[in-house]
Amino acid sequence: MTRVDVNCDLGESFGPWKMGRDEEIIPLVSSANIACGFHGGDPLVMQRTVALVKKHGVAAGAHPGFPDLAGFGRRYMGLYPEEVKAAVQYQIGALDGFCRAAGIPLVHVKPHGALYNMAAKDMNLARAIAEAVKEINPRLILLVLAGSCMAAAAKEAGLAAAQEVFADRAYEEDGSLSPRTKPGSMITCEDEALSRVVGMIQTGKVRAITGKEISVTADSVCIHGDNEKALVFAQKLTGAFAREGISVVPLSQICGV
Amino acid sequence: MTRVDVNCDLGESFGPWKMGRDEEIIPLVSSANIACGFHGGDPLVMQRTVALVKKHGVAAGAHPGFPDLAGFGRRYMGLYPEEVKAAVQYQIGALDGFCRAAGIPLVHVKPHGALYNMAAKDMNLARAIAEAVKEINPRLILLVLAGSCMAAAAKEAGLAAAQEVFADRAYEEDGSLSPRTKPGSMITCEDEALSRVVGMIQTGKVRAITGKEISVTADSVCIHGDNEKALVFAQKLTGAFAREGISVVPLSQICGV
Amino acid sequence: MTRVDVNCDLGESFGPWKMGRDEEIIPLVSSANIACGFHGGDPLVMQRTVALVKKHGVAAGAHPGFPDLAGFGRRYMGLYPEEVKAAVQYQIGALDGFCRAAGIPLVHVKPHGALYNMAAKDMNLARAIAEAVKEINPRLILLVLAGSCMAAAAKEAGLAAAQEVFADRAYEEDGSLSPRTKPGSMITCEDEALSRVVGMIQTGKVRAITGKEISVTADSVCIHGDNEKALVFAQKLTGAFAREGISVVPLSQICGV
Amino acid sequence: MTRVDVNCDLGESFGPWKMGRDEEIIPLVSSANIACGFHGGDPLVMQRTVALVKKHGVAAGAHPGFPDLAGFGRRYMGLYPEEVKAAVQYQIGALDGFCRAAGIPLVHVKPHGALYNMAAKDMNLARAIAEAVKEINPRLILLVLAGSCMAAAAKEAGLAAAQEVFADRAYEEDGSLSPRTKPGSMITCEDEALSRVVGMIQTGKVRAITGKEISVTADSVCIHGDNEKALVFAQKLTGAFAREGISVVPLSQICGV
Repeated sequence: MTRVDVNCDLGESFGPWKMGRDEEIIPLVSSANIACGFHGGDPLVMQRTVALVKKHGVAAGAHPGFPDLAGFGRRYMGLYPEEVKAAVQYQIGALDGFCRAAGIPLVHVKPHGALYNMAAKDMNLARAIAEAVKEINPRLILLVLAGSCMAAAAKEAGLAAAQEVFADRAYEEDGSLSPRTKPGSMITCEDEALSRVVGMIQTGKVRAITGKEISVTADSVCIHGDNEKALVFAQKLTGAFAREGISVVPLSQICGV
Repeated sequence: MTRVDVNCDLGESFGPWKMGRDEEIIPLVSSANIACGFHGGDPLVMQRTVALVKKHGVAAGAHPGFPDLAGFGRRYMGLYPEEVKAAVQYQIGALDGFCRAAGIPLVHVKPHGALYNMAAKDMNLARAIAEAVKEINPRLILLVLAGSCMAAAAKEAGLAAAQEVFADRAYEEDGSLSPRTKPGSMITCEDEALSRVVGMIQTGKVRAITGKEISVTADSVCIHGDNEKALVFAQKLTGAFAREGISVVPLSQICGV
Repeated sequence: MTRVDVNCDLGESFGPWKMGRDEEIIPLVSSANIACGFHGGDPLVMQRTVALVKKHGVAAGAHPGFPDLAGFGRRYMGLYPEEVKAAVQYQIGALDGFCRAAGIPLVHVKPHGALYNMAAKDMNLARAIAEAVKEINPRLILLVLAGSCMAAAAKEAGLAAAQEVFADRAYEEDGSLSPRTKPGSMITCEDEALSRVVGMIQTGKVRAITGKEISVTADSVCIHGDNEKALVFAQKLTGAFAREGISVVPLSQICGV
Repeated sequence: MTRVDVNCDLGESFGPWKMGRDEEIIPLVSSANIACGFHGGDPLVMQRTVALVKKHGVAAGAHPGFPDLAGFGRRYMGLYPEEVKAAVQYQIGALDGFCRAAGIPLVHVKPHGALYNMAAKDMNLARAIAEAVKEINPRLILLVLAGSCMAAAAKEAGLAAAQEVFADRAYEEDGSLSPRTKPGSMITCEDEALSRVVGMIQTGKVRAITGKEISVTADSVCIHGDNEKALVFAQKLTGAFAREGISVVPLSQICGV
């Protein structure tokens, strides 16, 4: 039977400021990446997001980012690998505290924003993150960009890694994401995006931006709940999965841990 | 055999700024209260302090404070009990992440600064802290001001509580600390301070500021490593313990957990 | 001719998080209280808000708050008066930098949230704020709660003070706001709120919560642009001013500076 | 008559954490670069540093940095030029508020740490900083690395720029600083460092790391007051200036503004 995990970033509100439509997107996902207070989220938001995740039976994951609230963790920062490792352990620990208080397990870790992008291409940062995760709990799953340094570092460390794909992005022949600045890098046609994702899950293949067919591992699909349009697309996506007989299952089943 | 725990705040440096003489004070203590990033400490400092604590065989405790770095957690803040509970869980979780990564247990929790002082007198805040601790791990020991609301809240929650005394402070007849503004509230004579602490441990009694003898539970003594003078006094104190046959033992033995 | 200033808080977004409907409320106001980065606002938001204010010909004011982003400056904090003075000067200076860069004057200062509420009742804090303002620029107008310690401190310091009234709040006989917890303290009927404000402006009198008529100085009315309902009420209010022949004019005219 | 400005970073303490020996280094300098709260400094520290500067008759400058307290502004951050411009204006404005409150002029601006290093090589960032300065006050002097993009951007904007040299660093043939990782890039012999600085000031020339003599503009020399060794070297440097008849004068005289 074909199956896939669906993951989404949640809990990115901060203090008086709201972000995301967590209540509406959560019924569609099997894994939640919960902000840990460095780029978004605060203790109360984290506690409530863990409660929401528990209520919906969705798997909880830590979503650590750079210490850059004003930049929402999207700005590159020149942290040393040892600083990244400590920052990631801090954030995983903090979220795990809320999970234990709520009586649910912490299942996975997915780095956020600039940290995700930098670690996808920098083996030293990727290793720092993998070590941080392994030292805290070697059974945590690392949710990574398919084919990235993060995937390699997880393997090196002996961690289970789940590889994620994106519905709205084109791929290079080496399996990396085409830069957003490249013409054709964003898949703007919803029907095309849907059929590409379904194809990646069913066949393990996708047509690169050059036209060549390449292999891709689609353990998980990343969706968004920022606005009405994203929500509607997410619903279409899970609708397509249902029609195609693709089961949405948690990462723990995908990775067999 | 008479015995007591000796606790000290550690890991209060932040980024490029150093604070405290952790390396010098740690040989004298059995319990370390480690700052968790809200009033002091940062992820790298926390990681290194946990390593230092492990190396010296000292018990690790979380030292959560108000989110007020510039004020070092010493300024009163009007957080709701639910905000306090979430802030405390966040900080305990973060420190516990480093402890697990280092392979040592987290043993106790001691609130810091204004949070400690407010919760000593406000049952709602004290309960919020006790609940935060209990939900994360009911075997954690709460290190509290002897005779305070925190002691009562720990009891209510079924948590082990260790009561601490101060060498340099006078007590009211009800066992509370005399306010610093009151004449005679600070014990400035070192010999008097030493004999008072030894007396509290050996007899469970101390003379209040009024002259009346009162009962006090001295599970732990709080010492400081901020400067040369504090270090020298701490050495005298542990020297006095040795001469008097008072064993310095970890909180876990004091509380029998 | 009867006249009044209309003021509103603006520029309270932060980083990726939006707050308030600044573009919609600004046509209705004569004075903007612009957040200065401590409780809300960031440098880019401040720069853009100053540009918006300039475009609409609205007077710019600094809206300094406590250094408490997560609490939006609404939580009480135990800062010393000298800390409050420095924090207020920092924030006024920062906003004034953007005003000078845009070529518009900084006209007034209105403390935010818990700082506003605490300084209304604490003469030491009120004096610290008045001194902070005076030292930077003695021609700045302090926008204060009518009849508060802030009004007294402004007078003492020789600063021009504009007193503001609220449409939706009841008053005690001494002119202070009835606490929100008191029955009848919130004026929920819009028509009643409108007629009360118009009455305060036209007659300098209002009926206190006890039924007794008291005097009140209504130099300015505070409105809100947080949501649809607040916007609609603000439109009704300025509509009522037009019908009643009440001119909306800047604080500088009200105070004759 | 030969003359030079001597500048030093001051006011880098934060909250309870002390940094630098401001009281001891200030008698040796003519220009103070005062931290503005983003990488170091807080409102109270800024206020006190401005008072110290005033007492010693030293010229006040703003020392804006990246919003990265834990990294002390030394970590590269990917801010857009418009974000840099706003961050710089915010910090200049804040410091200028304290200067006006103290009744002294703000004379110059020198970016800090990673912002200084990035803007030295990136014309877009350099322009953003020059524009930020010019819009606030076109008479402010930009204190820049000799021969850098910052020097070019200041010229472009029509701002007065003072070029600074370092006693302990080697130079490339193009006048840029040799990277610290290059052998011979740090001048560790104090006597050599002294004679190099004196030579740069007296002759406008220095021997590059390759051995070739190059031209250099030495408007200002940067000294440090972090520790005993730095202080002693700074005293030797000003002693050498006295012996050589080099007058230490403020930037305003150097730049003739």
